[in-house]
Amino acid sequence: MKIGFLGQGLMGSAMCARLIRAGHDVYVWNRTAERCADVVALGARQQETPAAVVTESEITIAMVSDPAAAHAVVFDASGVASAIGPNQSYVDMSTVDAQTAREIDRAIRAAGGRYLEAPVSGTRGPAIDGTLIILAAGDESLYQDARPLFEIMGKQDFFYGEVGQAARMKLIVNMVMGGMMTAFCEGLALAERSGLSQSDLREVLAIGALANPMFSIKGPLIEAGQFAPAFPLKHMQKDLRLATLLGDELEQPVPTAAAAHEAFIVARALGLADADFCAVFRAIAKGS
Amino acid sequence: MKIGFLGQGLMGSAMCARLIRAGHDVYVWNRTAERCADVVALGARQQETPAAVVTESEITIAMVSDPAAAHAVVFDASGVASAIGPNQSYVDMSTVDAQTAREIDRAIRAAGGRYLEAPVSGTRGPAIDGTLIILAAGDESLYQDARPLFEIMGKQDFFYGEVGQAARMKLIVNMVMGGMMTAFCEGLALAERSGLSQSDLREVLAIGALANPMFSIKGPLIEAGQFAPAFPLKHMQKDLRLATLLGDELEQPVPTAAAAHEAFIVARALGLADADFCAVFRAIAKGS
Amino acid sequence: MKIGFLGQGLMGSAMCARLIRAGHDVYVWNRTAERCADVVALGARQQETPAAVVTESEITIAMVSDPAAAHAVVFDASGVASAIGPNQSYVDMSTVDAQTAREIDRAIRAAGGRYLEAPVSGTRGPAIDGTLIILAAGDESLYQDARPLFEIMGKQDFFYGEVGQAARMKLIVNMVMGGMMTAFCEGLALAERSGLSQSDLREVLAIGALANPMFSIKGPLIEAGQFAPAFPLKHMQKDLRLATLLGDELEQPVPTAAAAHEAFIVARALGLADADFCAVFRAIAKGS
Amino acid sequence: MKIGFLGQGLMGSAMCARLIRAGHDVYVWNRTAERCADVVALGARQQETPAAVVTESEITIAMVSDPAAAHAVVFDASGVASAIGPNQSYVDMSTVDAQTAREIDRAIRAAGGRYLEAPVSGTRGPAIDGTLIILAAGDESLYQDARPLFEIMGKQDFFYGEVGQAARMKLIVNMVMGGMMTAFCEGLALAERSGLSQSDLREVLAIGALANPMFSIKGPLIEAGQFAPAFPLKHMQKDLRLATLLGDELEQPVPTAAAAHEAFIVARALGLADADFCAVFRAIAKGS
Repeated sequence: MKIGFLGQGLMGSAMCARLIRAGHDVYVWNRTAERCADVVALGARQQETPAAVVTESEITIAMVSDPAAAHAVVFDASGVASAIGPNQSYVDMSTVDAQTAREIDRAIRAAGGRYLEAPVSGTRGPAIDGTLIILAAGDESLYQDARPLFEIMGKQDFFYGEVGQAARMKLIVNMVMGGMMTAFCEGLALAERSGLSQSDLREVLAIGALANPMFSIKGPLIEAGQFAPAFPLKHMQKDLRLATLLGDELEQPVPTAAAAHEAFIVARALGLADADFCAVFRAIAKGS
Repeated sequence: MKIGFLGQGLMGSAMCARLIRAGHDVYVWNRTAERCADVVALGARQQETPAAVVTESEITIAMVSDPAAAHAVVFDASGVASAIGPNQSYVDMSTVDAQTAREIDRAIRAAGGRYLEAPVSGTRGPAIDGTLIILAAGDESLYQDARPLFEIMGKQDFFYGEVGQAARMKLIVNMVMGGMMTAFCEGLALAERSGLSQSDLREVLAIGALANPMFSIKGPLIEAGQFAPAFPLKHMQKDLRLATLLGDELEQPVPTAAAAHEAFIVARALGLADADFCAVFRAIAKGS
Repeated sequence: MKIGFLGQGLMGSAMCARLIRAGHDVYVWNRTAERCADVVALGARQQETPAAVVTESEITIAMVSDPAAAHAVVFDASGVASAIGPNQSYVDMSTVDAQTAREIDRAIRAAGGRYLEAPVSGTRGPAIDGTLIILAAGDESLYQDARPLFEIMGKQDFFYGEVGQAARMKLIVNMVMGGMMTAFCEGLALAERSGLSQSDLREVLAIGALANPMFSIKGPLIEAGQFAPAFPLKHMQKDLRLATLLGDELEQPVPTAAAAHEAFIVARALGLADADFCAVFRAIAKGS
Repeated sequence: MKIGFLGQGLMGSAMCARLIRAGHDVYVWNRTAERCADVVALGARQQETPAAVVTESEITIAMVSDPAAAHAVVFDASGVASAIGPNQSYVDMSTVDAQTAREIDRAIRAAGGRYLEAPVSGTRGPAIDGTLIILAAGDESLYQDARPLFEIMGKQDFFYGEVGQAARMKLIVNMVMGGMMTAFCEGLALAERSGLSQSDLREVLAIGALANPMFSIKGPLIEAGQFAPAFPLKHMQKDLRLATLLGDELEQPVPTAAAAHEAFIVARALGLADADFCAVFRAIAKGS
């Protein structure tokens, strides 16, 4: 299938590479053009604009960093909206708020195209391994058409109905993740202050009802102070902001998520925006 | 071995039953004497006071509900402290604060006995199955002598050095547990307000990096509104209180644990003190 | 002077009435046209659109309920932007975020007009009495021209430089107000639970270093359960949201403001959006 | 009257000096004996133990730093409890929790004495000026006898019934104070990050409904970084701890007080325990 792929960041480049290796004909674009080099080396054909990618592709996938970027790639000059037409499809796998998703949906449908939002759960490792979790909502026929691609990139996919619902599910999952990470880091910091070691705590957590892959994977990195970004802290902070705003919109208080959100803002103030999100440990353990 | 067992609550009765079935000679006492009936039916010999139990036993184990009860069983008239002497040992498996543990330790040692604090992680299910996690600190020779008993009651045990350290580890583990439960419940509540279902969220969480037994076990019970106490909410609230006080003592802020603590106080105000701790969901989802 | 006045809500109608009584020629518009009746009775001339008001006026003032309304009154068809031109001035006294203020500023200046943001601190009482505090930023020459009008509506005015800064000051003041109100209500609730009365607490607060008009005015209303809106709770909740988002933008954590914000969301979930903001007491004292 | 005065800290020394200057015969003791020098110079007679003070005095007043010190001064060897008898009275003006107050009350009454708890609101300045607010509970006849002394030390006094209620009122007032201070500091920090000045914000607050002496007095000190202790930060942090524990005991959630409490713990971790409590600003403005 002729597939377009917009965005070649940490996530997008790994997902795109899997599609190429699976034998698809992939047209690519990235705001910073040089970042396309790796996938071009694998066989992707680089285009100058999102519009040019859309023109060549049956399904165009986007994976960009935030709602503003997702908006720009569609609505800027030579953006997706300027080129898409009947028989063409757009699958936005970026994490955006429901409002942005709905705005993009309206524009694509007005042009006769089909739209699916399909944010993912998982970081660069799962993106490389093709074990992402894919949360989709929007045009159900497009969801069915895109599933063979989702199977290349992910281990499981879900469909949640109307546009915006997948974005919400993604935010809620990340809100739980941010809360769990903060609880974990407060525990690690308190263990250290108590004269126990981080690994003492990890060992107990690993064999009980709280055992989970995130603690197992991030725990040793936190202790080692290795904060290379698998999921950048600034993105987690953004997701916590969007999740608390969702709670606000729906009159659902989320007080511990709001408290966790503040810890991530402290972390940003400490210069950790581009570190892995588990670097929130440093905001907590430094006595803040 | 001749073993004493003080306390026949949800946890103690299950742990005690395993020791009896393993062939030990067990002397028991409980403040409400009738609750000893089950273990007496299995062969335990009921005594009238903690002192009487201690007199008969090489190692006396206590498993009572809170620091006040742990203190009383030792220091009340006919308590453990009044009977213990050289060559006798006391293992307190209750969850208490470090200060109470140290006070008991001093009294036992002053009388010539050996003391080990050994709080457990796990609820009634693991107590029945013998899969508790046992966190010990205090007299290391007693720890070695007690390990055969721990192997009957638990799946793993740890030794953390001086008295108070096991109590602290237990509190920190429960603090992480309370934080994770609150984050989970905020997520479930927000999913429902978003028009997604609790099971939609559980399904995604179950296959990703956040998957853990607690979410899997408690999730369906929360959705079903089944709050029979495996771990009573009031005990989790107490542990969150003690953990925030530990943070206070050690100058380690724990802001999300403090926020989670308040959610459990709301739950108590709603009359849920004796429900399972996952009933904190009702405090969160009711718009509070 | 020929003055335009857009918005005839709780605040706008009181401010507008003062300008009319001071002898100004006032042209008015309101989305719900009937609400203009009171000021028309005082001599205002009602117009059908914001554009029609602008056309007649040297300085047009707007006082509408939120950023969306402030945006609409300028950018909708027959809005301010469609009519304003050189020698005309627009003073927006609504409370909006800095981004909305800057967007309006750009549009007004592009059309050759002058723009001043001038949000106020104070509720309906001070609006009636002409004792508002007026926080201005933007075109300094317009600030000087508008001061005679500000003196009719307010007791003091301030100028903070570039557009957006007055909006920020307003949000920060309201953030402090929301935090103080929440602290006060937690105190009142805790006093009652302690068997002390609300008036016992108010009496002590009234003679010490914490004494302030807000506690004195709102305290008796809270005890009496009289929550007629002087400043609607939903507006305070919105301001707390915008203030926490400002903290987010500027990497300044505001954890207690975030916690207070959640209390106001609980209050909205209890159906108190249109009550006075001191009704947050009911969210706190009900055990939530 | 022959009056005893135990405790010569920041507060006690100022209060004691006023009693001496008013013509009373004052017997004094302090744990660190040298600190009695100032009041001895004014005419006080120094004793070696609390018991010796009690023996000489009709009414003995205590003003020590925390519940532990208040407990020790009564129950240690040669403490108040060892000497007090019929026709003797004990007025504890320290800030303690209700439980400690009740314990002291029982001991004093068991010995035939009268007991009044009488914590104060106000810092060293009002202690020097005799403008403290005095919150009393316990023996009402002693309250009447002590009022002439209270009039020397304070500007107003209140009686709240049974022992413990004055302690609670004091904690609630300080909880509101800690919450207001944190809200103020978050506002000041956010103003600075916004490019507004602290004095800009103070100026607006000073003329509106939030105006209060604490903001007026502490605001300039915060901006100047002058944190000489009028009310030590560690004492405010302790009061916030005790207030949140009171909420816990009474099932009254106090989520913003709990969040403020964490800010004060951050401040302690930054080494500010002995600074004035307004130094919590540094914990907030440093990005924590």
